[in-house]
Parts: sequence; structure tokens; C-alpha cells
Amino acid sequence: MGGPEIDHLIGLLSKLPGMGPRSARRAALKMLQQPESRMLPLAAALTLAAQAVRPCADCGNLDSQDPCTICSDEQRDRSIICIVEGVGDLWALERARVHHGLYHVLGGTLSAMAGIGPEDLNIPGLLSRIAEGDVTEVILALGATVDGAATAHWLTDQLRSTGVSITRVGQGVPMGGALDVLDDGTLAAALRTRRAT
Amino acid sequence: MGGPEIDHLIGLLSKLPGMGPRSARRAALKMLQQPESRMLPLAAALTLAAQAVRPCADCGNLDSQDPCTICSDEQRDRSIICIVEGVGDLWALERARVHHGLYHVLGGTLSAMAGIGPEDLNIPGLLSRIAEGDVTEVILALGATVDGAATAHWLTDQLRSTGVSITRVGQGVPMGGALDVLDDGTLAAALRTRRAT
Repeated sequence: MGGPEIDHLIGLLSKLPGMGPRSARRAALKMLQQPESRMLPLAAALTLAAQAVRPCADCGNLDSQDPCTICSDEQRDRSIICIVEGVGDLWALERARVHHGLYHVLGGTLSAMAGIGPEDLNIPGLLSRIAEGDVTEVILALGATVDGAATAHWLTDQLRSTGVSITRVGQGVPMGGALDVLDDGTLAAALRTRRAT
Repeated sequence: MGGPEIDHLIGLLSKLPGMGPRSARRAALKMLQQPESRMLPLAAALTLAAQAVRPCADCGNLDSQDPCTICSDEQRDRSIICIVEGVGDLWALERARVHHGLYHVLGGTLSAMAGIGPEDLNIPGLLSRIAEGDVTEVILALGATVDGAATAHWLTDQLRSTGVSITRVGQGVPMGGALDVLDDGTLAAALRTRRAT
């Protein structure tokens, strides 16, 4: 239609999560109509982020400083580490402002199916952080999936000898959730974790 | 969460058509995890497209060559010009491979509400192309909206004295469309344009 540059750009945009060929074309067209105000700023932001952002050597969070903003924050409770599968989970917990300790990003879960073993995850970093002695509690904030549960079990076994308290995030009915659309496993967990009102 | 670079990038991505804050975060995270293979190529494609792509001086199509690929194509029928509101309409017609002549991008429609008059559209370019004498038919492929219809009427008046044949794209039931979900205007047009089978 308009030369290889446009086709190439649409191809790359269409591979972004949440984008398809149609929305990629719309995005490309909108940017092409305002190259100075829309296209070049995005190109610059991408280049800058690619150059500046690195995984935090301590926790695995992505940040333009290392140690990351969270690990460097003296206000945070250094005795509690929340273990998450990925940076997206960390972002979600930070947006909710529900955890005031530190994090540790595993980089995935154990998975026999996908052939992911402990050596593929950021376990040594976790063990050495705990060995430093400041940590009193580890919160396992892993997904409620088969692999998430298996990883939580394995980590509980591994960490038992360290003497830190090990907890898992609660399971049950999500906020705003109707019971009749929930799966059996969630309903079972919700009944199991019932509390007096 | 991870410094101003990430927040800035997510902000720009979330302004793309089809993207919201959630998909922008997912896209940014996916790219941040593969900066070399995903982020820098997109930055380069954006920069290249912003530098290379310009509106065609003849028809208004966006292309990295001027006159554009379509206007330069000797195989195309130079006697028929299809008038469209925007480059997105031109792209849609090209994908459908239904028009083998040239195009003319108006850059919008007349709109009393939005204060868009003939002087805001690429009308002089159209008149001078027709004045060159090669054009025998002008197809008005404008949207079936109030403004599209008003623009089509106005153009028909303007072009009548040139002697070229002026046609409008047909209206009716879209392919795959069920009648019971169509609006009254479309149903009226479909009955009005009925043909013997």
C-alpha cells in the first residue's frame, strides 16, 4: 500500500500483546498522520527504556536503577519478601499498594510439562537473600495454577530449614465476583478458608 | 514501579488506538523482557517510518515514495479516480483488491458541526487532476454518514461541469450480514437498490 516501511511497522505493532492486524493498522495510521508528535516520541521512549531498564540484581524487578526503586527504598519492610512469578505480578501488587516489604521475582514457575526446573528460576538469589538474616517472613504470591502450587510446595520444602515464616496468599471469591460463575476449585477454597464474621 | 522510563513508555503505548492502560502495561513488559529483539526493532521501524513516509503530492496516500506506489504504477487505470475520506479507507479498498484505478484522499468530509469547509479538504488537487483530462470517471467512496452524504452531494455539484462520470459506491446489506440487525437506512437502501436475480 505505502511501501515496505509501513508494512514492516504494522507487522511489528501487530505482535504486541492485545494488538492484532486491524488495531496495528489503525495505530500505524494514526501515528503516520502525526509523526512528530506521536511516532518519534514513542520511538525515543522505546530506545530509552531498552537502554536504561535492566533486571534488579537483588530481586529481579525491571527498573532503570539497580538495585531497583523498591529494593533501594529505606521505607520498605526489609524483613518480608513477597515471591512472585513475574514482573507483571509485582506491578499488580504495587498498583494495589498491598505489600510494603520487598519482592523476589522467580522468573516463572517449576513445570514438568515445559521442562522448567529449579535451576531455571532465580532460586540461588532468593536463598542468599534469606541467608543474609534480615528476612523473617516469605510470602508465596504464586498463581493458583498446578505449576504455581507445585512451585509453592517445592519452595516451602526448600525454605523450611532457614527458619523463616512461610505464608501463601489466600484463595477464595474475588472481589465483585458472583459465586455462580466460579469454578469448583475456587468454591472449595472459599469454603475451606471461611472465617467467623 | 520501575522508574520514569517505564511509566512514560506505558503512557505513550496506552494512547495508541485499541490499547488501554492494561494492554499497554502488558506490551511494555513483554518488550522490556526482550529489549534487543522486540523493543529496539520497533523503535527503529517507528523512526524510519516517521522519516520516510510522506503524503503523496498527487493523491494524498501515505507512502515512502512520492508520487506514491499506486500513482506511480503504470498498470493502474488512470482514467478512474476513487475519492476516499482518509488513507485508512484507501488501505481497506487496496486490501480488498476491488479498485484498479487511482485514488484521491480528501482528508476528511465537509462538516457544518465540526466547521470543516471545502477549503479544509484536498479539493484543489482533485480539480487540477481532473483538469489534466485523463480522468473519465470519479467514484465517490465516502462513508454512509450524514457528512459523507453531504460531501458527496457537494462534490457532485462541483464536478458536474467537468463532464466526468460521477458514481457513488452502492449501499445495502453487507456480506454475511443478517437483516434483523441492520438499521432502517440500510434496509431502505437495500430495497431501493434491489436487482433482478
